[in-house]
Amino acid sequence: MKVSIIGATGYAGAELLAILQRHPEVEIVHITSESSTGKKISELYPHLRGIFEMKLESLKDIEKIGEDSDFIFIALPHGHAMEVGKKLEDLPVRIIDLGADYRFSDTSIYEEWYKVEHTHKNAPRVYGLAELYREEIKSAKIIGNAGCFTTASILALAPLVKHHLVEVDSIIVDAKSGVSGAGRGLKLGNHFPELYDNFKAYNVAHHRHTPEIEQALTDLGGEEVVINFTPHLVPMSRGILATCYANLKEEVSAGTIEAAFQKIYGKEKFIRLLGRDAYPETKFVRGSNYCDIAWHIDERTNRVIVLSAIDNLVKGAAGQAVQNLNIAAGFEESTALDFVPIYP
Amino acid sequence: MKVSIIGATGYAGAELLAILQRHPEVEIVHITSESSTGKKISELYPHLRGIFEMKLESLKDIEKIGEDSDFIFIALPHGHAMEVGKKLEDLPVRIIDLGADYRFSDTSIYEEWYKVEHTHKNAPRVYGLAELYREEIKSAKIIGNAGCFTTASILALAPLVKHHLVEVDSIIVDAKSGVSGAGRGLKLGNHFPELYDNFKAYNVAHHRHTPEIEQALTDLGGEEVVINFTPHLVPMSRGILATCYANLKEEVSAGTIEAAFQKIYGKEKFIRLLGRDAYPETKFVRGSNYCDIAWHIDERTNRVIVLSAIDNLVKGAAGQAVQNLNIAAGFEESTALDFVPIYP
Amino acid sequence: MKVSIIGATGYAGAELLAILQRHPEVEIVHITSESSTGKKISELYPHLRGIFEMKLESLKDIEKIGEDSDFIFIALPHGHAMEVGKKLEDLPVRIIDLGADYRFSDTSIYEEWYKVEHTHKNAPRVYGLAELYREEIKSAKIIGNAGCFTTASILALAPLVKHHLVEVDSIIVDAKSGVSGAGRGLKLGNHFPELYDNFKAYNVAHHRHTPEIEQALTDLGGEEVVINFTPHLVPMSRGILATCYANLKEEVSAGTIEAAFQKIYGKEKFIRLLGRDAYPETKFVRGSNYCDIAWHIDERTNRVIVLSAIDNLVKGAAGQAVQNLNIAAGFEESTALDFVPIYP
Amino acid sequence: MKVSIIGATGYAGAELLAILQRHPEVEIVHITSESSTGKKISELYPHLRGIFEMKLESLKDIEKIGEDSDFIFIALPHGHAMEVGKKLEDLPVRIIDLGADYRFSDTSIYEEWYKVEHTHKNAPRVYGLAELYREEIKSAKIIGNAGCFTTASILALAPLVKHHLVEVDSIIVDAKSGVSGAGRGLKLGNHFPELYDNFKAYNVAHHRHTPEIEQALTDLGGEEVVINFTPHLVPMSRGILATCYANLKEEVSAGTIEAAFQKIYGKEKFIRLLGRDAYPETKFVRGSNYCDIAWHIDERTNRVIVLSAIDNLVKGAAGQAVQNLNIAAGFEESTALDFVPIYP
Repeated sequence: MKVSIIGATGYAGAELLAILQRHPEVEIVHITSESSTGKKISELYPHLRGIFEMKLESLKDIEKIGEDSDFIFIALPHGHAMEVGKKLEDLPVRIIDLGADYRFSDTSIYEEWYKVEHTHKNAPRVYGLAELYREEIKSAKIIGNAGCFTTASILALAPLVKHHLVEVDSIIVDAKSGVSGAGRGLKLGNHFPELYDNFKAYNVAHHRHTPEIEQALTDLGGEEVVINFTPHLVPMSRGILATCYANLKEEVSAGTIEAAFQKIYGKEKFIRLLGRDAYPETKFVRGSNYCDIAWHIDERTNRVIVLSAIDNLVKGAAGQAVQNLNIAAGFEESTALDFVPIYP
Repeated sequence: MKVSIIGATGYAGAELLAILQRHPEVEIVHITSESSTGKKISELYPHLRGIFEMKLESLKDIEKIGEDSDFIFIALPHGHAMEVGKKLEDLPVRIIDLGADYRFSDTSIYEEWYKVEHTHKNAPRVYGLAELYREEIKSAKIIGNAGCFTTASILALAPLVKHHLVEVDSIIVDAKSGVSGAGRGLKLGNHFPELYDNFKAYNVAHHRHTPEIEQALTDLGGEEVVINFTPHLVPMSRGILATCYANLKEEVSAGTIEAAFQKIYGKEKFIRLLGRDAYPETKFVRGSNYCDIAWHIDERTNRVIVLSAIDNLVKGAAGQAVQNLNIAAGFEESTALDFVPIYP
Repeated sequence: MKVSIIGATGYAGAELLAILQRHPEVEIVHITSESSTGKKISELYPHLRGIFEMKLESLKDIEKIGEDSDFIFIALPHGHAMEVGKKLEDLPVRIIDLGADYRFSDTSIYEEWYKVEHTHKNAPRVYGLAELYREEIKSAKIIGNAGCFTTASILALAPLVKHHLVEVDSIIVDAKSGVSGAGRGLKLGNHFPELYDNFKAYNVAHHRHTPEIEQALTDLGGEEVVINFTPHLVPMSRGILATCYANLKEEVSAGTIEAAFQKIYGKEKFIRLLGRDAYPETKFVRGSNYCDIAWHIDERTNRVIVLSAIDNLVKGAAGQAVQNLNIAAGFEESTALDFVPIYP
Repeated sequence: MKVSIIGATGYAGAELLAILQRHPEVEIVHITSESSTGKKISELYPHLRGIFEMKLESLKDIEKIGEDSDFIFIALPHGHAMEVGKKLEDLPVRIIDLGADYRFSDTSIYEEWYKVEHTHKNAPRVYGLAELYREEIKSAKIIGNAGCFTTASILALAPLVKHHLVEVDSIIVDAKSGVSGAGRGLKLGNHFPELYDNFKAYNVAHHRHTPEIEQALTDLGGEEVVINFTPHLVPMSRGILATCYANLKEEVSAGTIEAAFQKIYGKEKFIRLLGRDAYPETKFVRGSNYCDIAWHIDERTNRVIVLSAIDNLVKGAAGQAVQNLNIAAGFEESTALDFVPIYP
């Protein structure tokens, strides 16, 4: 299976390379970067020295790359993937996009939140959250890989919404992420001395992962979901913890909640249900494709609090992309994803 | 003014010493520790070498300490302060307790959440949150200094609850604290390699600061408040950020919210109102007695999100205790509290 | 190949488990812990949930464990491995000890630095630093796996000492380690708030890795080496950087130094020579079995400065132990060690 | 006393403001920044909101600023201070430069290491390391405030060199600094995810603080000193630890070393001598103007190892600058510098 990576020099692209170069069924044929064309990836990421030394190309000749590849991963800033996707429309190559361009079934929502015109509206695409859209992924031409906060949030809330156990207008997701989620681009807020020993919220009420969570939960439950989503930045490199609140409907018991989680995730390899009153920690999933989930019931307020933890660069990006590849290509779903979380 | 500190070897006690030894109106006459009696405090806290070298005594002779002192600060684990308080009942000395024993007007709530019998129920006490209970503090015999999470949460929500701008049954506080809040006692969860590069929630639906927040908000708004409170541990030493959610009542405008904050805090020296759509960061208050507050309105869900940041050991403990001392003793309220936040 | 791990609940033991459970030629048959006998390892290390759930046994029946196993890894505090080793003396099982008991050819040096009597002086043992003692390891009964600081230090200095390029009485090793090297045992110095945002030296002139480095360098160069070794604690979890200083002998050129490194390590899979004037970073090897090495020449003082970086729990402990297993058992040397460093 | 700050928006400038606005004898009259002219300093440093809100001016009218001021602090990149200094040559205003332009008595050394022509060679200047050059500072027109690494290194080694207790050609300084020392300018190496959980050396054998240390030690001991200096970056915000090695001359006893330290520093307020075999930690001095010093003797190699810790932005920059101001202006030397280290 020949694969290429368009935009290999961001953190998600580099993580993807690290995973794919160990994949026994995959050969990497092209990797691209416009800003570093001609350099070896290991010059930009010295941890890859001696492991993977391929040179970066330009994506100018994308059609040639498309012809050489069975699958193309795109890890570009939003707005750029749809340009690539359109050019590859008529080739047999299949696409897994790690950005937002192909995540929305209603492109007007994309346009509203991302402030760009969508130029590939009729693209044949599916939402790439493996555990919930596996059947659709199998035969998809274009997979819009789920975002990092959204993966943690949707997986935490899906059983409750799908089984109508909570009031959908009461959902609040208070999420916390390590700084790698903000990418490799320099800005003062992510300068080491500014962020070290610091904690803050950002993009309150305006983060672009909000409509993505809403789309999936609306789809799963069949009634429109509008949520509050608040991201925070944790002074560490990797990891997301989502703390999700919802009002329980009347007469929903702890057993019903437990059953809902078991029914959806009981056989999932990458979802570890810790059960009621347990505590996921981001460090217990770091470097792995796991999503750990636990839930708590506050009887005083009749709310359920679901906690979920992922590694934002693995299950929240590159790991999930490879999981989607495995599903789409018919490989065993966990191929090349047998990472043990690195601890401590 | 002669003061003593009972339980000087925890983080709050040490911070208190660091502040008080610079206080121009104060003389420290006794400091105690049962586990380190006879040692100099600088042996336990080498940062105090050459600055403050007093020896630790036992609190066995608490009556003598009480006679020598105008004010006594207590920084003991909960359940112990009330024993001290009872013994000092008939002396003129006044008490500022940094623990929970004197925070509750209804001691049955204390007994329910802290799982100990309250043995000093009729103690003449006031709640020590300076900005909201200043008048009561002036003449109090015993001041139950507000807790760290509670200070950040109550200050954030007080204007909204007092002016009846939000549905009080919709309040959720999602709070995040640096690790010094857990104290100096050793446990695996706070062992460096376990917590570094890690983020987690704890005590969901059961944290003891919950009823303390509810008591103050109920008192301020005149209707019973029951909230969700979820604490998290941030891998850093100091700082609390509270993210507070509430449903706005109908027809509440942004201007009304702004006015409510201005009315209560407009003249407060230690509260910095950053205004709508701003972002407090814990680092901007580190090492200082400030509480920074900002608010956001999510028009899609009609919720207000209030963010507040404090240094848990200063405004959340020792700084507020000295602020309370200044009020109670009639000193200028900011005496010895002119710390500039340490940045970066 | 059946293997057991004696003392599986320290950080090195847990890392060993994480590596071995992926090893295609290995079956783990027993794991032990005296303090947690009967518990599942995943109760102590929740990152292993769903991955490796074996129960911990006692080492009381060590003979039975020895009979069941082809190889036994020991990850006990020093002084305990030799008791185990003696009991297994007459069984065919082979031993890889991650502690210090079998690292010294002259046990009087061990006794002097470790302050315990050596009770297994005649044990047939070799020093387990794979790149330098590969031949001896192949057939060893007992392998004394090299320590973490020592691995970084010896690998950095071996080419210079072996080829007599430096004055051996001028060697100074200034080493820095993440906190996992201090183990999982609780102590105030490693309590999160005490170590965070802090840097310090410890055990100056008295660290027990000193004689181990001296033994190997003396062995390699044929003349007695006595060094200064100064360890420091870095506020992070993993990683060692060793900064090694030595006076160059007269007329030693940059080319001669380069050639010495190439000759010894040119074909080594796990040693990455970055060359002159380069900078290893601990993050570039984190989670992997690599040792990155670079060197600098200060012409003003005629000194060479060699920098080396490893992950203390992998190349400095469990990874090297598995590398030694692979050599001793005749497997391909990098089996189960194909970890890509986790970045960022 | 009227003071101005030229270049107030770097970390050293901001620290200087935070200290000076509390100084009872000082009025800040101008602060400048070319990139942020017209902005309030609190827009760039929100921790100063409500504390210090002065607007930034341009330094274009430096003569006017000079006329308005008794003292001018310069916190500009090297090469720029001497331009300012020349323009103020004929005014009575005195200058404290936090950069390198006025640190060298032999400007050819400056030119060699800093690669710029020195344009103010005859400037009447003294080296601003308060404890060692106090007399000269009292009446100086221009004070070249000592650098951060240099302060820690020179203070550690001065007693040994001045009293001829060590071989001066054997001195090695292995220094470690928090990231604030690298300034507020953005670069990939200081991007949070790259540096977090990472440790590395930089500028080996070429760091510009090398000749500054050599100049002071040569001056103190009367014989030419050439050293090795190796800086490292610690993943934390503040703090420097210098580990200094030197071969002891024959017959130098522990008592002689102790006496040398006591003689020079015994009465110094900001130097805390911890004595033999002790361990300074950067956290014990964080946020304060202290330099903590301890020493160890390795009898096996006859070397002395001196450890010193400072806060790089206080004793290593702004604190020392204010200490120099106090000396030069005739104030009590510790005025406005009574910071207790912030702990934990």
